[in-house]
Amino acid sequence: MIKAGIIGSTGYAGQELVRLLLGHPEAEIVWYGSRSYIGKKYDQVFGNLFEIVDAACMDDNMEELAQRADVIFTATPQGLCASLVNEDILSKVKIIDLSADFRIKDVSVYEKWYGIEHKAPSFIEEAVYGLCEINREKIRNCRLVANPGCYTTCSILTLYPLVKEGVIDPDSIIIDAKSGTSGAGRGAKVNNLYCEVNENIKAYGVATHRHTPEIEEQLGYACGREIVLNFTPHLVPMNRGILVTAYGNLTGDYTDAQIRAIYQKYYGKERFVRVLEEGIAPETRWVEGSNYTDVNFRIDPRTKRVIAMGALDNLVKGAAGQAVQNMNLVFGLPEETGLKQPPMFP
Amino acid sequence: MIKAGIIGSTGYAGQELVRLLLGHPEAEIVWYGSRSYIGKKYDQVFGNLFEIVDAACMDDNMEELAQRADVIFTATPQGLCASLVNEDILSKVKIIDLSADFRIKDVSVYEKWYGIEHKAPSFIEEAVYGLCEINREKIRNCRLVANPGCYTTCSILTLYPLVKEGVIDPDSIIIDAKSGTSGAGRGAKVNNLYCEVNENIKAYGVATHRHTPEIEEQLGYACGREIVLNFTPHLVPMNRGILVTAYGNLTGDYTDAQIRAIYQKYYGKERFVRVLEEGIAPETRWVEGSNYTDVNFRIDPRTKRVIAMGALDNLVKGAAGQAVQNMNLVFGLPEETGLKQPPMFP
Amino acid sequence: MIKAGIIGSTGYAGQELVRLLLGHPEAEIVWYGSRSYIGKKYDQVFGNLFEIVDAACMDDNMEELAQRADVIFTATPQGLCASLVNEDILSKVKIIDLSADFRIKDVSVYEKWYGIEHKAPSFIEEAVYGLCEINREKIRNCRLVANPGCYTTCSILTLYPLVKEGVIDPDSIIIDAKSGTSGAGRGAKVNNLYCEVNENIKAYGVATHRHTPEIEEQLGYACGREIVLNFTPHLVPMNRGILVTAYGNLTGDYTDAQIRAIYQKYYGKERFVRVLEEGIAPETRWVEGSNYTDVNFRIDPRTKRVIAMGALDNLVKGAAGQAVQNMNLVFGLPEETGLKQPPMFP
Amino acid sequence: MIKAGIIGSTGYAGQELVRLLLGHPEAEIVWYGSRSYIGKKYDQVFGNLFEIVDAACMDDNMEELAQRADVIFTATPQGLCASLVNEDILSKVKIIDLSADFRIKDVSVYEKWYGIEHKAPSFIEEAVYGLCEINREKIRNCRLVANPGCYTTCSILTLYPLVKEGVIDPDSIIIDAKSGTSGAGRGAKVNNLYCEVNENIKAYGVATHRHTPEIEEQLGYACGREIVLNFTPHLVPMNRGILVTAYGNLTGDYTDAQIRAIYQKYYGKERFVRVLEEGIAPETRWVEGSNYTDVNFRIDPRTKRVIAMGALDNLVKGAAGQAVQNMNLVFGLPEETGLKQPPMFP
Repeated sequence: MIKAGIIGSTGYAGQELVRLLLGHPEAEIVWYGSRSYIGKKYDQVFGNLFEIVDAACMDDNMEELAQRADVIFTATPQGLCASLVNEDILSKVKIIDLSADFRIKDVSVYEKWYGIEHKAPSFIEEAVYGLCEINREKIRNCRLVANPGCYTTCSILTLYPLVKEGVIDPDSIIIDAKSGTSGAGRGAKVNNLYCEVNENIKAYGVATHRHTPEIEEQLGYACGREIVLNFTPHLVPMNRGILVTAYGNLTGDYTDAQIRAIYQKYYGKERFVRVLEEGIAPETRWVEGSNYTDVNFRIDPRTKRVIAMGALDNLVKGAAGQAVQNMNLVFGLPEETGLKQPPMFP
Repeated sequence: MIKAGIIGSTGYAGQELVRLLLGHPEAEIVWYGSRSYIGKKYDQVFGNLFEIVDAACMDDNMEELAQRADVIFTATPQGLCASLVNEDILSKVKIIDLSADFRIKDVSVYEKWYGIEHKAPSFIEEAVYGLCEINREKIRNCRLVANPGCYTTCSILTLYPLVKEGVIDPDSIIIDAKSGTSGAGRGAKVNNLYCEVNENIKAYGVATHRHTPEIEEQLGYACGREIVLNFTPHLVPMNRGILVTAYGNLTGDYTDAQIRAIYQKYYGKERFVRVLEEGIAPETRWVEGSNYTDVNFRIDPRTKRVIAMGALDNLVKGAAGQAVQNMNLVFGLPEETGLKQPPMFP
Repeated sequence: MIKAGIIGSTGYAGQELVRLLLGHPEAEIVWYGSRSYIGKKYDQVFGNLFEIVDAACMDDNMEELAQRADVIFTATPQGLCASLVNEDILSKVKIIDLSADFRIKDVSVYEKWYGIEHKAPSFIEEAVYGLCEINREKIRNCRLVANPGCYTTCSILTLYPLVKEGVIDPDSIIIDAKSGTSGAGRGAKVNNLYCEVNENIKAYGVATHRHTPEIEEQLGYACGREIVLNFTPHLVPMNRGILVTAYGNLTGDYTDAQIRAIYQKYYGKERFVRVLEEGIAPETRWVEGSNYTDVNFRIDPRTKRVIAMGALDNLVKGAAGQAVQNMNLVFGLPEETGLKQPPMFP
Repeated sequence: MIKAGIIGSTGYAGQELVRLLLGHPEAEIVWYGSRSYIGKKYDQVFGNLFEIVDAACMDDNMEELAQRADVIFTATPQGLCASLVNEDILSKVKIIDLSADFRIKDVSVYEKWYGIEHKAPSFIEEAVYGLCEINREKIRNCRLVANPGCYTTCSILTLYPLVKEGVIDPDSIIIDAKSGTSGAGRGAKVNNLYCEVNENIKAYGVATHRHTPEIEEQLGYACGREIVLNFTPHLVPMNRGILVTAYGNLTGDYTDAQIRAIYQKYYGKERFVRVLEEGIAPETRWVEGSNYTDVNFRIDPRTKRVIAMGALDNLVKGAAGQAVQNMNLVFGLPEETGLKQPPMFP
């Protein structure tokens, strides 16, 4: 059994990690970290786990955690993981960081977009960007996984085949993304109150959202050069789910079949990416609670653009599920271990 | 492997049954019945099951089904199961009926409340009311299980210990229930459109809802005499979940500890009924997607009443989950097989 | 023009008061009070009022306010109004208090249920309970109006005719109430976050909610003696609306027509109480945004109880609308002035 | 008083028209048309109007309606208005058509996108496209107003200044739109059931939605040539509201102040278009129930694009409110008559 510790277990992503690891046949949770709820029983924070989890929340003692655990998940605000990691820790335990600390290779880009100093830049090089479908081989046996952002995962998986194969002009990419509210976290803020979110949709972080450079970096690798693109997130009155609608100028006269073949080339054998049938648009309801990303596209012959779409559950494939998928890779387990549950509808 | 056939697999309860059986280690689905979608691929009706279910919907051929399956689930409107069952069928296959056809022992009561003629009254006696926590022994090895209604399961589990032990006067019982909208089914009706249900709460079927006699019959068994009670269902703008708030006049000066001990007596060892800690009111969010029923109570010393509360997921413990639990009992499997997933939040 | 000042104008009820007064032909707002947002432009707190309100939030300066205004609305937490009121203030300005400070005549009951000391008990006697349909005459020309609670208004209007006319046994009353989330206020609390409220229903304040003694006092006046009853509020995932489902034991063999006549006797001429037609249950969607309360009832001949139901918009008839209705009465205007807008659906 | 008849008064837009006209000081409704509910009392279809509207639904008798009414609103499916209009009718009564029949000047474009034959092409030339802020002068005194689509109104108002002034390259325009569910109509379809829409977001009509040519035509007039663009609508789990997020390549080095001045040039004096302050993104909650369109923009210097955003209530400015605004123009009333109510929040 893999012994797992979670730092930040009382956020939405942390709790989802708990839910998934409880159903994982090869893992057990040995540490429920939560600075906000130290000493409180975990099932008093999350009543769904009453009579299921019998543990109290613990402080973030990295040294002790590294002794007890085989893997540490950090589901914490930016900066915390970087402040905790060091060679001694990494020699004892694997780290899967759900924050942005190790996602961006250029530390100056990180510091500019996040507005904080990076406390452990020397480990950025070593960290592997944990988008399993693309970096699978690098993830195996690595020590430090930078688990991708929710918007990022959806955006990249939606566009990767198109960019990699040169189907669209990378400079023309526009990503319009929509997210459920669990992505905003469990902090008590007026803007996230029920009556403020319900019956409303808005864009936020327009032209400034922090997932932008992460998407640009990864898609840049795919096309072999630096790119800039537009990314606009929106807040949707629902608990879970991200939908990406992305636009790109076609570089030639592609048919639907040709582009479909390209998607199949990359995702045909992927367990967790489903290329939908022609004419079916991805919907967040069909992936809820699961690790799937659904993708599809439509060519607009009038404008010579392609509209590519992707949907995932921001707490699963967009956070905790992908973290477990990464854990499976790191520890040599079948990638789908503990992640087989079908999406739940309605 | 238990071979399972589902008649009515394209309603919300039918689809939930599919979801649960797909995760069941000892069962496989051999028949996706749906009169409305004959010949259509199941994953085109429910996109969540794309690349998971590779089968088309089939007509209701009971003879053939009885040949192919070990157990048939009927998740259909009232009357259908009664019209299909006969000795030949029951000699070949177990039936778990999610409709009301075999729940009520007095056929005249059934016909009065449901307004239809019962087509197979001779099997009512044999049928076992499938409320697992109460009728566990009778369910084992029976041929025909009458799977309880969603409101009924929640109401009975909430009140059973109080009625059984004479803590409340049965004639004083008032049950005020609230349900998510999946309970209203997947039929296309104006009243169930998004804009009609959203931002609204209403009572319906006031003093006339069909689950009333079912609750009365079962609680009547608990106290050893016929009773009448008030049951008022409400429609709540959410997908899943039932909350029951029930009121009863105390028959004596009970303390919280005394009543808590009574609940523990009945549910202390139950896997799927959680008696919450003092002061914690059940909430539907904490049971969503799971087979749990959460119950608790509060004494009001001012009025000498007890307010008992229960919450469950109407599609799981209120329908498909309990059906699987019944299947496990009938086939001698551990009761929780395939039902271990924790509730999903948020 | 009546000059109105609002203390607590940045809560949900305060903002609703602003919306209603902006449409009132005989009133103007001269003071947008808000301790939390002093100096901030009001339309930056509530973007709906951009280009409509051009004022900044002000501190609670009661002296100055009394100089400038003809009426002060206090839409504030319990205790504040009582701490501000005195003879000098009341000699200059009318006060309509949306908090509970002057609703309960017995100061010890107030202090017990609210857990705070009452700072101005000498004015309790003078204050008029502002349930317009019942206390209309007393409200005219009074100086201090205790605007009723949201649950209270709905509960009393639903039950008043039955209690007043002795149709039900007051000792048997059970009120099961359901409220939209705006009733929980605009404070930043985890429990009121979107993801905590959405897809959930729960009871809260079971047997202890503070509106209980207020309902008991007023219904006690109706039947001429002290009563105790059960009141259970529930939180519903919607913005606005309260639904009350109330149960009472019939004192005789009433017909539907007889009870309907009793409701008509009290409400037949009321502008803001609609007695629905037989068989139509009140729904919150039909009163949203308006000052209406819809009521109806159903006799259950099996249990000899009546189920009485009422629906209102908690921010309008349950708070700001009734406050305006009270202002109209106090200043001798037609009661419906500024309150004529039909409910908005969907 | 203007006598108004409504054909299609029992759809969501029709009912909203009723709500608005009931509050209009210079208009009265003389005909509640509804083929689906002939003879049924209007307040039994929409309970919000109980005791407010005392009329029954009537069939579509255009001759009689033209005798009785000064203006006819057709809130009907495409094709119906075109089949009813003729010179005789237009000589007696003004028509404001909320369907698409007279919006598109090129009948072949209409027939291609809508897939139906146009029954009255001879009146297309005469019809005035009723986007009040742009065609105000033409609307006054015209006989036949083509009331714009909901998505169209929001898209055009958001982009018009940018296109008109050449700030963006028209060939680069991408419009990503999000709508509440009332836009899908009140027909009973499985796809619009509560449980199908709730907790979900999806794109639909990708590259094929019928509002596309309408937007292209109107923006084409603004820039003086034919254009094609991408328009992608999405369905959002909320009742009301449309949000448009539009992208365009800047044609030069514009500053925020320069573009803001351009928006002010066109909308600075408009009653119903609010140019928000810098940094504030439009949100549908701030316009709900009102005739406002909120617009704003943000320059992305990295990609040299502008992101323009607009929000309106699809049933008000996107349908019934704009229809009333058009009526006011046609009949020479102040444009805001009956449309002054502030947005309702929450």
